[in-house]
Amino acid sequence: MNNRIALAALSCLVAHGCTTEQGAAQAPSAAAATAAPPKMILIIGDGMDQNQITIARNYLVGYDGRLTLDTLPERSSVQTQTVAEEDPSLPEYVPDSANTATSMATGIVTSAGRIGTTAGTDRDAVSIMEVASAAGFKTGIVTTASVTDATPASFVAHVSFRLCESPRGMVTRNATNPAFSADCSADYKANGGLGSIAEQIAASKVDVVLGGGLRNFDQPAEGEETKTVSELAAENGYRVVRTAAELGAAPADGKLLGLFSPGTMPVQWRGAGDAMAAQVARVEGRAVYPEAFACEPNPDFAAMPTLETMARAALARLDDGGSFVLMIESASIDKQSHLRRPCGQIGELKQLDDTVKMAVEYATAHPETLVIVTADHAQAAQLIPETSVLAALNAASPGHFARVRTPEGAVMGVNYATNDSSSQEDHSGADVPLLAFGPGAEAIPAQLRQRDIFGIMLKHLGLAAPTRP
Amino acid sequence: MNNRIALAALSCLVAHGCTTEQGAAQAPSAAAATAAPPKMILIIGDGMDQNQITIARNYLVGYDGRLTLDTLPERSSVQTQTVAEEDPSLPEYVPDSANTATSMATGIVTSAGRIGTTAGTDRDAVSIMEVASAAGFKTGIVTTASVTDATPASFVAHVSFRLCESPRGMVTRNATNPAFSADCSADYKANGGLGSIAEQIAASKVDVVLGGGLRNFDQPAEGEETKTVSELAAENGYRVVRTAAELGAAPADGKLLGLFSPGTMPVQWRGAGDAMAAQVARVEGRAVYPEAFACEPNPDFAAMPTLETMARAALARLDDGGSFVLMIESASIDKQSHLRRPCGQIGELKQLDDTVKMAVEYATAHPETLVIVTADHAQAAQLIPETSVLAALNAASPGHFARVRTPEGAVMGVNYATNDSSSQEDHSGADVPLLAFGPGAEAIPAQLRQRDIFGIMLKHLGLAAPTRP
Repeated sequence: MNNRIALAALSCLVAHGCTTEQGAAQAPSAAAATAAPPKMILIIGDGMDQNQITIARNYLVGYDGRLTLDTLPERSSVQTQTVAEEDPSLPEYVPDSANTATSMATGIVTSAGRIGTTAGTDRDAVSIMEVASAAGFKTGIVTTASVTDATPASFVAHVSFRLCESPRGMVTRNATNPAFSADCSADYKANGGLGSIAEQIAASKVDVVLGGGLRNFDQPAEGEETKTVSELAAENGYRVVRTAAELGAAPADGKLLGLFSPGTMPVQWRGAGDAMAAQVARVEGRAVYPEAFACEPNPDFAAMPTLETMARAALARLDDGGSFVLMIESASIDKQSHLRRPCGQIGELKQLDDTVKMAVEYATAHPETLVIVTADHAQAAQLIPETSVLAALNAASPGHFARVRTPEGAVMGVNYATNDSSSQEDHSGADVPLLAFGPGAEAIPAQLRQRDIFGIMLKHLGLAAPTRP
Repeated sequence: MNNRIALAALSCLVAHGCTTEQGAAQAPSAAAATAAPPKMILIIGDGMDQNQITIARNYLVGYDGRLTLDTLPERSSVQTQTVAEEDPSLPEYVPDSANTATSMATGIVTSAGRIGTTAGTDRDAVSIMEVASAAGFKTGIVTTASVTDATPASFVAHVSFRLCESPRGMVTRNATNPAFSADCSADYKANGGLGSIAEQIAASKVDVVLGGGLRNFDQPAEGEETKTVSELAAENGYRVVRTAAELGAAPADGKLLGLFSPGTMPVQWRGAGDAMAAQVARVEGRAVYPEAFACEPNPDFAAMPTLETMARAALARLDDGGSFVLMIESASIDKQSHLRRPCGQIGELKQLDDTVKMAVEYATAHPETLVIVTADHAQAAQLIPETSVLAALNAASPGHFARVRTPEGAVMGVNYATNDSSSQEDHSGADVPLLAFGPGAEAIPAQLRQRDIFGIMLKHLGLAAPTRP
């Protein structure tokens, strides 16, 4: 919505020692006390719960191997928190990516589907990117999803519902499932709002935005006959690139918007021959377990920049000696799990792990950098026996099930059984992991609430908390 | 089996600075450097993965609340490891409680079902309790399962299969499911073995053993007409108690064997009116979600000592000023999850959490005490939406599903869908949490393998590693 009151608090944000809403002075962070300005890299594995990590580890490095993720020195567990839109005093126990990313980006707890806005009251909550920009810090967002998707959107936009990604998508009806209808009419610029997520990105101060979602920008902006959202972005100083080659050739300075696919970027891996989880067949009462398959490269991925390539490109532009905040998301760990595709998940977790390696190398060379790696919420995929202990009784998964042949020569069972639809799985609600490297990492509590990540980032950067919406 | 070679290495174990098999001298631990002899409390939540903890937290203290578990200062994630019996060079990705407890108790990786013995070769692996006893330390085992069940058994016994709990159970055939047949004939004392798990407990040096499993002791020992295993235990110095009152009245010194139920002890809670997860009904193609229920006390539990009561009783006997090792297991988090009983799980996690609180209080008063809380393996239960995002399309869990009404007035969906049998769920294979409090806790890596827990306990106690089997 269009409640801008909270942003008024930004006027005091540039100084260390600025007074917060609680009236307490912010102590300079450990990093701020050193010569180099503090830097923040937040890496989000969408849906990357402990099942996902174990499944990926088993495939990528073996049951006795270690991912880069496994080598980070500090670990916490994060309570995700969600409230009901109709009654924000009541919790819901399973979140979505919009409300969880909003918690990390703004420090508030909100309802499922909301992007940077409060449950019930639709007020805007100031994001870490806005606080950092107001302080003169550089900011960047990198994702393998559409840049307008829930996770990246929550770091830059304020809108009542996550599906309002483009001018055309602000009001939509889904007759089959009302949960997938959108009505963001209060967010129209004509109604005093900030417009669609794509328009808010185009108008934003974020220095680097890289990912998918071109179709949400190559359409007329609200109230325009022909001028597209991309053109609005260009007017706001963005160089817009659409291919890995254009990304490589883009100037090193100036704002950059990279849109490498119409929507979500293609994923790195797929099941051999496009194999995925399936229902276990029953023949004359006997369970017939599916054939095991390995993973193979997804041909559609070949033209894409990798997550690591995008993250390096962003880092190169943010790293000008000053402070910055960079959010990097591997989005399709979640999306492939929704679609019951274990190899897709594993490949996207590999993309994340490769990027974590690069980020830790950067932070080692720039020890004023705090790297936090976490997930927004848990997902459906579950690592289960490749044959049930009760297989002799013809027991088998009642959901969708895959047997994945790993490079170390064994078979891994991956189960998807949160619902029986033909289309997609639900999320799950378990706490998610958080791993950290850099100054202050050791001070992160072993257990925290997701909204606390906002405060940890502010503290590291020496920034005061904005007024609560 | 009866391979006693490994125990020969125990001769050097009493000294700090003893040379290990790797040839490196053990540095005295931080605790050993203080005046007070180091103490070790290992608390195992059987099946207590992150879904279990989040589910229990939501019910017990609310979505914004904190368990005692959540307040422990150090957290790690633990890779469980299992190998195939037929080819121990090949991993299996989902463990059982026998091989995981064996990893923690002895530092080896073995195959599912094995108790303190090696995969394929059936050699005995020396347990932490044996090392500690040989060093003159006191030892204790407390569980809500039968004391002969896989987790406690792995800390005291060596046998080829977990179901060989009693003299009568050494060779059994399960025609329905061969996976539940046992053949421990090589472990008969007549064949040079150590006998059943119950007989090994009866013959052991463990100072305090408390839990269920009376039926495995109130039967004739191998080769005896009438003399029971309980009588063997008494001959070995054990005071045998069978009720909470007898436990309360037992002398404070001398060995103690408490057996409070025939098998697994009854659990603290159940679903209201004994409600549990069920298959979602379909009426004319429509999914009819089950009624929500709350939890209530299980009347069968009333006569039982709580886990905390048993743990206090053990601690009182081990706490004589010297070093000790105490393993405490809340066993039925796992067993109730197998049986699709969310309230059972939650109540048993509460028993664990209450016991953790007591242990942390003890360790605060005795700062030479390291408390480690962990799980042996992940379980089936998954926290999912109480109504699917696709409920409008009549999507619902394909497995067994419960809607649990929480004290904070919301409804929590708990799903069990690893297999479609009418009897029980399978385990899952995700990494499990580890939480720690006390000296050396901060030095535990953020990611470790389950077998490393053995080494951490040895190091804290200043004991050298035994020879590998």
